[in-house]
Amino acid sequence: MSSESLNIDYIFKNHALLKLALSHCSSGQDNNERLEFLGDSILGFFIAEELYRLFPEGREGQLSRIRADLVQRSTLADIARELALGSSLNLGSGELKSGGADRDSILADALEALISAIYLDAGLETCRKTVLGWFEGRLAILDLDTQTKDAKTRLQEHLQAIKSGLPEYEVLEVAGKDHQQTFAVLCRVELLPEPVTGYGSTRRDAEQEAADAVLKELSL
Amino acid sequence: MSSESLNIDYIFKNHALLKLALSHCSSGQDNNERLEFLGDSILGFFIAEELYRLFPEGREGQLSRIRADLVQRSTLADIARELALGSSLNLGSGELKSGGADRDSILADALEALISAIYLDAGLETCRKTVLGWFEGRLAILDLDTQTKDAKTRLQEHLQAIKSGLPEYEVLEVAGKDHQQTFAVLCRVELLPEPVTGYGSTRRDAEQEAADAVLKELSL
Repeated sequence: MSSESLNIDYIFKNHALLKLALSHCSSGQDNNERLEFLGDSILGFFIAEELYRLFPEGREGQLSRIRADLVQRSTLADIARELALGSSLNLGSGELKSGGADRDSILADALEALISAIYLDAGLETCRKTVLGWFEGRLAILDLDTQTKDAKTRLQEHLQAIKSGLPEYEVLEVAGKDHQQTFAVLCRVELLPEPVTGYGSTRRDAEQEAADAVLKELSL
Repeated sequence: MSSESLNIDYIFKNHALLKLALSHCSSGQDNNERLEFLGDSILGFFIAEELYRLFPEGREGQLSRIRADLVQRSTLADIARELALGSSLNLGSGELKSGGADRDSILADALEALISAIYLDAGLETCRKTVLGWFEGRLAILDLDTQTKDAKTRLQEHLQAIKSGLPEYEVLEVAGKDHQQTFAVLCRVELLPEPVTGYGSTRRDAEQEAADAVLKELSL
């Protein structure tokens, strides 16, 4: 196996690292699971920092949603396909026969493993440059306002889907003077024992932040 | 506010960053939410890399569980208390009155914000050294085998708690020769449309890995 047959824009010094990164756990005990564990966190850091710098006006909830879109399994699998990882994967015979080389979960895991392999081979800055290069097209078209649905809508849709009661919002406090007010809004849902508080410079913003905090508590 | 009154083992060059990191969203529009977003990912990276290096024999599932314990809200809040963050927090009047300075969520968020503030003030290596110093005692007592319950137990307990059917395990494939075998085991649960595969050098290991993969799919 050689990195030259891949479109990863990086040549490994230590080819054993590349081989390990492309070895799915079905192939044996020397596989990419540990590298995937590390690579997931490196990718999370790169993307978070990039979004932090790209969107100085972005609120935390907006940045979190964009990041979740960028690092979700289907996106990572698409990037792995663009890098032509599939044909270089080392799979067990069962996975090979059942089409594992094009399965989203296997491709996404291999991509994350490849990220930490590059990190271990060349250090953080080379890894960052290479990885952000893979995401370049996706990062270039990001827009804070066109990302997914707002938090209140997503929370309501989720609760309806699982037949739980609708959320209730209540203004807890309005602090500060006329044009510098901070609203504190409580959001109550049946699934959580305590209401969750959101803050914003308008009531609407505070409700969105509260809904966002509830989605976080529910791991959504 | 000055960093000298904190036990954070770091002196800020740019005090505005420290002030921002300690400003809860209830205090106004210039608050620590964006820093928290970035800090969360930096912390995840530091802890993942440290565990990767500390436990060369650790499996991905074990490392993930240890990391989850280390970065969970209650642990971060405890560390924030050790660093004496509470009394330096900048809170809105409502949060101040209702004891926000000792609330786990507010302390944990401030700790994450402080991490990225140090990163922006001094770069990655100083930040890493400082943050891992905060975790030193907790990292020193880690043990791969005494961490929490195994995946099969946790999955079973979760499914019982939500009154869903118990998981079913099935050996899909045994590959390789006598002492180098790889078992592929399917785990089926009512909550997921497809069975999930785990791999290991014993049937028991493969079942644990399958249960672990199901817990991940369920975001647990």
